[in-house]
Amino acid sequence: MEKEKIWKGMIEKDPDSAAEKFTSSILTDKKLYAQDIIGSAAYAVGLKSIGIITSAELGIILSGLKTVKALIEKGEIDFTAYEDIHSLVEYELLKIAGEPAAKIHTGRSRNDQIVTDELLYMKESIADTALKTIKLLKIISEKAYIYRGLVMPAYTHMQKAQPVLVSHYLLSFFEKFSRGMGRLFENFEACDCLPLGSAACTGSGYKIDTGLIKKVLKFGKTSSNSMDTVGGREYIIEYLFGLSMLMINLSRFCEDLIIFNTQEFSFIEIDDAFCTGSSIMPQKKNPDILELVRGKSAVVIGNLFSVMALFKGLPSTYNSDMQEDKKLLFNAESQTKECIDIFSRLLANIVFNEKVIMQSIKSGFLEATDAADYLVRKGESFRNAHHIIGRVVRHCIENNLSLGEMQTVKLKQYSKYFDNDFYRAIQMESCINAKTAVGGTAQKNVDSKLKESLKVIDDYEARLKSLFERIPDFELIVSEYI
Amino acid sequence: MEKEKIWKGMIEKDPDSAAEKFTSSILTDKKLYAQDIIGSAAYAVGLKSIGIITSAELGIILSGLKTVKALIEKGEIDFTAYEDIHSLVEYELLKIAGEPAAKIHTGRSRNDQIVTDELLYMKESIADTALKTIKLLKIISEKAYIYRGLVMPAYTHMQKAQPVLVSHYLLSFFEKFSRGMGRLFENFEACDCLPLGSAACTGSGYKIDTGLIKKVLKFGKTSSNSMDTVGGREYIIEYLFGLSMLMINLSRFCEDLIIFNTQEFSFIEIDDAFCTGSSIMPQKKNPDILELVRGKSAVVIGNLFSVMALFKGLPSTYNSDMQEDKKLLFNAESQTKECIDIFSRLLANIVFNEKVIMQSIKSGFLEATDAADYLVRKGESFRNAHHIIGRVVRHCIENNLSLGEMQTVKLKQYSKYFDNDFYRAIQMESCINAKTAVGGTAQKNVDSKLKESLKVIDDYEARLKSLFERIPDFELIVSEYI
Amino acid sequence: MEKEKIWKGMIEKDPDSAAEKFTSSILTDKKLYAQDIIGSAAYAVGLKSIGIITSAELGIILSGLKTVKALIEKGEIDFTAYEDIHSLVEYELLKIAGEPAAKIHTGRSRNDQIVTDELLYMKESIADTALKTIKLLKIISEKAYIYRGLVMPAYTHMQKAQPVLVSHYLLSFFEKFSRGMGRLFENFEACDCLPLGSAACTGSGYKIDTGLIKKVLKFGKTSSNSMDTVGGREYIIEYLFGLSMLMINLSRFCEDLIIFNTQEFSFIEIDDAFCTGSSIMPQKKNPDILELVRGKSAVVIGNLFSVMALFKGLPSTYNSDMQEDKKLLFNAESQTKECIDIFSRLLANIVFNEKVIMQSIKSGFLEATDAADYLVRKGESFRNAHHIIGRVVRHCIENNLSLGEMQTVKLKQYSKYFDNDFYRAIQMESCINAKTAVGGTAQKNVDSKLKESLKVIDDYEARLKSLFERIPDFELIVSEYI
Amino acid sequence: MEKEKIWKGMIEKDPDSAAEKFTSSILTDKKLYAQDIIGSAAYAVGLKSIGIITSAELGIILSGLKTVKALIEKGEIDFTAYEDIHSLVEYELLKIAGEPAAKIHTGRSRNDQIVTDELLYMKESIADTALKTIKLLKIISEKAYIYRGLVMPAYTHMQKAQPVLVSHYLLSFFEKFSRGMGRLFENFEACDCLPLGSAACTGSGYKIDTGLIKKVLKFGKTSSNSMDTVGGREYIIEYLFGLSMLMINLSRFCEDLIIFNTQEFSFIEIDDAFCTGSSIMPQKKNPDILELVRGKSAVVIGNLFSVMALFKGLPSTYNSDMQEDKKLLFNAESQTKECIDIFSRLLANIVFNEKVIMQSIKSGFLEATDAADYLVRKGESFRNAHHIIGRVVRHCIENNLSLGEMQTVKLKQYSKYFDNDFYRAIQMESCINAKTAVGGTAQKNVDSKLKESLKVIDDYEARLKSLFERIPDFELIVSEYI
Repeated sequence: MEKEKIWKGMIEKDPDSAAEKFTSSILTDKKLYAQDIIGSAAYAVGLKSIGIITSAELGIILSGLKTVKALIEKGEIDFTAYEDIHSLVEYELLKIAGEPAAKIHTGRSRNDQIVTDELLYMKESIADTALKTIKLLKIISEKAYIYRGLVMPAYTHMQKAQPVLVSHYLLSFFEKFSRGMGRLFENFEACDCLPLGSAACTGSGYKIDTGLIKKVLKFGKTSSNSMDTVGGREYIIEYLFGLSMLMINLSRFCEDLIIFNTQEFSFIEIDDAFCTGSSIMPQKKNPDILELVRGKSAVVIGNLFSVMALFKGLPSTYNSDMQEDKKLLFNAESQTKECIDIFSRLLANIVFNEKVIMQSIKSGFLEATDAADYLVRKGESFRNAHHIIGRVVRHCIENNLSLGEMQTVKLKQYSKYFDNDFYRAIQMESCINAKTAVGGTAQKNVDSKLKESLKVIDDYEARLKSLFERIPDFELIVSEYI
Repeated sequence: MEKEKIWKGMIEKDPDSAAEKFTSSILTDKKLYAQDIIGSAAYAVGLKSIGIITSAELGIILSGLKTVKALIEKGEIDFTAYEDIHSLVEYELLKIAGEPAAKIHTGRSRNDQIVTDELLYMKESIADTALKTIKLLKIISEKAYIYRGLVMPAYTHMQKAQPVLVSHYLLSFFEKFSRGMGRLFENFEACDCLPLGSAACTGSGYKIDTGLIKKVLKFGKTSSNSMDTVGGREYIIEYLFGLSMLMINLSRFCEDLIIFNTQEFSFIEIDDAFCTGSSIMPQKKNPDILELVRGKSAVVIGNLFSVMALFKGLPSTYNSDMQEDKKLLFNAESQTKECIDIFSRLLANIVFNEKVIMQSIKSGFLEATDAADYLVRKGESFRNAHHIIGRVVRHCIENNLSLGEMQTVKLKQYSKYFDNDFYRAIQMESCINAKTAVGGTAQKNVDSKLKESLKVIDDYEARLKSLFERIPDFELIVSEYI
Repeated sequence: MEKEKIWKGMIEKDPDSAAEKFTSSILTDKKLYAQDIIGSAAYAVGLKSIGIITSAELGIILSGLKTVKALIEKGEIDFTAYEDIHSLVEYELLKIAGEPAAKIHTGRSRNDQIVTDELLYMKESIADTALKTIKLLKIISEKAYIYRGLVMPAYTHMQKAQPVLVSHYLLSFFEKFSRGMGRLFENFEACDCLPLGSAACTGSGYKIDTGLIKKVLKFGKTSSNSMDTVGGREYIIEYLFGLSMLMINLSRFCEDLIIFNTQEFSFIEIDDAFCTGSSIMPQKKNPDILELVRGKSAVVIGNLFSVMALFKGLPSTYNSDMQEDKKLLFNAESQTKECIDIFSRLLANIVFNEKVIMQSIKSGFLEATDAADYLVRKGESFRNAHHIIGRVVRHCIENNLSLGEMQTVKLKQYSKYFDNDFYRAIQMESCINAKTAVGGTAQKNVDSKLKESLKVIDDYEARLKSLFERIPDFELIVSEYI
Repeated sequence: MEKEKIWKGMIEKDPDSAAEKFTSSILTDKKLYAQDIIGSAAYAVGLKSIGIITSAELGIILSGLKTVKALIEKGEIDFTAYEDIHSLVEYELLKIAGEPAAKIHTGRSRNDQIVTDELLYMKESIADTALKTIKLLKIISEKAYIYRGLVMPAYTHMQKAQPVLVSHYLLSFFEKFSRGMGRLFENFEACDCLPLGSAACTGSGYKIDTGLIKKVLKFGKTSSNSMDTVGGREYIIEYLFGLSMLMINLSRFCEDLIIFNTQEFSFIEIDDAFCTGSSIMPQKKNPDILELVRGKSAVVIGNLFSVMALFKGLPSTYNSDMQEDKKLLFNAESQTKECIDIFSRLLANIVFNEKVIMQSIKSGFLEATDAADYLVRKGESFRNAHHIIGRVVRHCIENNLSLGEMQTVKLKQYSKYFDNDFYRAIQMESCINAKTAVGGTAQKNVDSKLKESLKVIDDYEARLKSLFERIPDFELIVSEYI
């Protein structure tokens, strides 16, 4: 550990070494080194603006921070010697820059500094998650385009329900991850507020030039209340919620695909490169990745609940409990990003077994609802039509027939409305194309949604580009203010 | 139970009576009766528009629905006779309206119907929660205004930190619940999409006039994908998240107040009308309500966890697991609304013990940071100033002195920069008013935030008004289309 | 509400009516009326023993309590008039028994009284859950016996793995619920400690005859520490954990059966009486119950989470947050019991489609592991044997052959160890009966486990009987002490 | 990654490199290397017993495993080259031992192997947690002994309730952690069942000598059902529950101490070595460790919920989702152990401020309940006595008196039963020593509990010793069977 804690003075006794290790957060928050440095650079710019440091001192500090960053990236700093990333940056800077570095914490506290680091980190993380989610959306859209004509059974309660286009099925997940994008954009905005100036909890005792620092760090707003700012982590909780929702939807997609991948369904073929084998059973080819993603969804949800339980009943302003937030954040975001990535690659390489699927739609009376609709169009009320077709289906099952194999004369015993045009009405293609209501699976609807999906993706890419522009760049700051 | 299930026909055997009771949702979803009726009314309007029913039939249906509503509200219908609210409304309507009622389910499924009911219900619930939250914001703002001059200790780690205005402390919760309002507005938008037309999962087999139905039900959008629509409940999960965040912030407020209410702190006095006594200890006056709200926050978070765990790994489209969503929703929203209400009333009646608080700020070296800032202004670097004041404080503790009681000559032994103006610099008022950075506790900052809070409340009220206008009214629909 | 709170005296002002409603727990804890009455009866017996009340007064109290119980059960008491069940019983008793009733709270507090009520309630609830679980174990055992010869594919990763007896599969759940029984027995023991005598938190100020009260209430132990006793609810948390584990295992069973019930698998037939239909699709027969049980498992886990989050960070001894425990307990136990019940009935009525299952084991190379074992017995190392069979299986897939259809001469190209006895070695029956290691699926193992299961059930029934004997009976107490 | 996967043969294509990284568990399960090696050693002993390998081969394998272990411990093996710890040990052994190593996986699967590794690991982890918990119990007992005479206020609802011995307060946590020990002992037993012989899921195809392997690995039982064994992780879930309960109780202790440590309470002094300072406020001394432990309790609870959500709805037998269990286990157990350790050290160094506490008991009417009890002993009913004292207390508050300062003549206006002996009855010592009911705070009760605590600790130490004896030792196995 460093020779002297930054808070030495009041507390004379040396910390217990186990206590020191326990309270240290460096092994976790070292991940924030770049953010801590950029935040310190911007803060120094602000200190110069209000005359706490001179132009010359600012130059020394900025080039010192540049050196610290380089040393960290070369692996030349012993992280374990420090209590946290803030102490590390301040002390390493002190070694290099001397006296001016001792001024950098003027009017600042680790309480507003850590929020700054986290917000900067989260903006990058959110933008990165969004980038990956867009890639997933593209693959869904492409896959849906490839299978645009193919009809499969839709299931409810895991029972065959009605025929649907494979594209329509796939696009149902486009909607889910599209909402996920909406949440990510909101998550980003929740991070757009400069916390510096809040200091420990009551606000800085200096006339901090928050307008300038905000501009340098590219934040859109400044803190409204210092006590709220240092004591809240709602931005993290909201992001963990956004990530959890992404994972829940991935887990549902995985569940579908695991079932479609059983020998019994055989609707899809997962590329060998994305399967694993068994150490004992030579014939096995397991959809390992899909299962792992499903499992990891539970882990990310657990992270969300940890952070919510952590804040429940916590006194306001800063309490050290909050130090645990970072591990939960880092775990959830890295796992989710990895899952989106690998799932996208796997999905891109999935093949739908057209032959099997085309065979599958022949059984299960998928056209029963359309048969009832046929009767309604002929004049029957829906409730009656539903009962009639129910009885016809029972007859078919008992006699091992399909609906199309029923004779008209036999059908007429159930309802006078049955006629020769019945058989055309219950063809799969007819069923599909009858679903023209908004959101339905008719081919023309799906084609239009496919086209729309490309525009949605373009829009997301444009919005994401503007997010990336709202993330500050250390080199640019240094070159502008040195 | 009703004589015949609406799905009779295919399944011949009567349900096992325990199974029937188990699968029945009527005791929960009866809460949705008004929504089911209004949704059916709008759907009937849509059916008339595409010629499934005539104008006359529409009239019969609408007035029939009016009667069903009246019967329910008079308590004249035996709920337990039905499987769910949809069956109840359809069968009761059938009794009154006869044949036309048998057409009302044409092209509709309980799968899109329940989503409609839930979305309509949620819009009302969210608007109501928002109304209550605005009331809480008003009380916070008023309370903050009342105590605008009073200085209290701010705590971090539950240790005395720096002086702060009571108003500033209270306004830190204004920020928290203000973000809560933001979430509620988003929650409302997530409910603004018409699901009708999605039918069971692949879309309706009829040319449903979704444009008209959307207008009647005052939705802003229509479903993009039928499979997604019937299989998702993200709007509920998001609302439960919004409610959980409100509860977490309430629980933190409660924790503060419970501690402030201990005899040892005695910062506040809770009105007797909001306290309870002990069955055994005659002297007790317990802050029961604050504890209950804190406890209920754990319950609402648990509801969120339930619904997230429920959807994790669930196959897409509709599965009956989803039937459990309503109980969780109803519990979370009613508990949260009740908590906001009662907490607001209690807060409105809290008195801050000015005498005790004014005494409290005299100890704990709340001015130590400002003392360090003093040295910085004189020319010391902050890091040195921090160490110097740390040592001075230790000296004070050992000699039972306050900072203000130190002699200048003694102070000069610690730093040459100490001078006579030190004493004024560390007066509470000076400390407070030095915090002029954005978000700080200086009186002028707080006064400006107080003014701003009124505008924020006005803005919320205006936005809420427009939400209420986006909730359909049954009577108006009936009078327009009958 | 009752005219006067039992804690009137110190708090002069009347409670705010919303506050009164909010803090009231009567609508929840009325479920504990029988326990509150029996606890009060036993306490009165104890008070008589130490001379606080006379024999005559005890008689009046006991018969008064009997009347209160009868009035409650006849629905003649207005619950809403009271704050909680303790106040209700005490005041109603006062009306009937007069002065002696005013002594019943001597040396007792609602803090130890509620623990008493809960523990008594839980003992009954746990015994009842155990009873239902035993019934489920019986049905599993019976079902396993019925299908003792039938071979099905075992799955790992939802991929066909190796052949297994249906009985073996079913008995895997016998183990899971057997562990569930173990937890219930532990849950019961955690409730076996008399809390009376702890009073509000520091112990009763009277020489309470806890030995006698313990005997009357049939507790095995007495409290060790009054502060711990009134401030803990570990027995509830543990029971909710036990219930959650039961539900998790039920949910896994449901997941299996839902998949086995798809048309694609068609391994089982669920009795019509336990299925529901669709409001729109006439052909549907949905495994509603299995899905609901799976969904409810998430609800019960959420209840556990709520109670754990509630206690996290709570100060020791009694806090009103704990009042929420009962709703969580009542919900979790009633849902779980109902789920076990209905699932048992459904399971009892499931039929395995032997024809389909026998067809299913022909594909998927279930015998591949045994083929490798064959080579090992001939002299190959296992790792080599595994690779060889892997390549043979690939050859079979490419040439649309089963392992048994490979020619010996062809096989010998893969390994010299292949011979004519290979074909017998890979027959399903051979595969099954090779699994003689403890816990394996060989018929003789399974038969022995089936026999053992009956003994296990007998043992559980005997132990459960002794639990029921440890639950006190009000009538017996009255008749003994009146 | 290793040249060839152990499951190569069937799956021809090389894995996608991202997929390979994603599915690899080596960075987590390397922590199980010692268990994997000892499990393999015992399995080899078993294979020799049934003739799969010769004595000579066993010798080669055992000494090979010894070498592998040494290489790992010297850091000479590149973990990242392998898929998981099982592959690593098998391949590294192959390099050293050649052909015999290729036989070690005969009749074994990674599915039963990982359970073996986990159970062996957990036994050690549980014993270690128990060791630390016993140490904590000792410190509580010692601390309680040190402060045996000191009286403090007991709080309910964070309001002063009644006087209590500090020892009694401390011993309330002895009870909580004592129950924690009970759970740990149960957790250990849940790990006491040999899984080897279960193979992939249907049992091993060899006559595995499970009796011998069980003996070598010191398990008490063998698996009852292979499908259950490979598909369950209840032992982990139960342990995470046990750990969560320990953490919840630690968090409550921390909450108490954080409040007792406020300047306003000042009941305790935390040693400087266990406090941290502020980067900005020179006077701060924060109870960082207590807050961190409280925060980490939320993390451990979240781990429990992750694993429960993971298993909810999972098909039976092995699914790769289960691979996530280890990270959750390792995190929860290491965090909990670290928390118990550091909390124990902190507690051992806490000093109670006797002067402050003795002052504190003078206010708050802690003797009010005893005052009521006084009246009851004189002949008043408790309910009346409670009301009388309530009114007296109100009078005292209004007139700024303590109960002892009331004149007898004034008291008699409230009740004729008041007399001169009242003052002695309400002395703190009298109050304390009146609490003689079992579990009460009377000095003699507490003294007896203190004595008992030593015996309890002795008993735990003896039981723990026997647990350690049930953990196998690699060196001993090698030396016995080589």
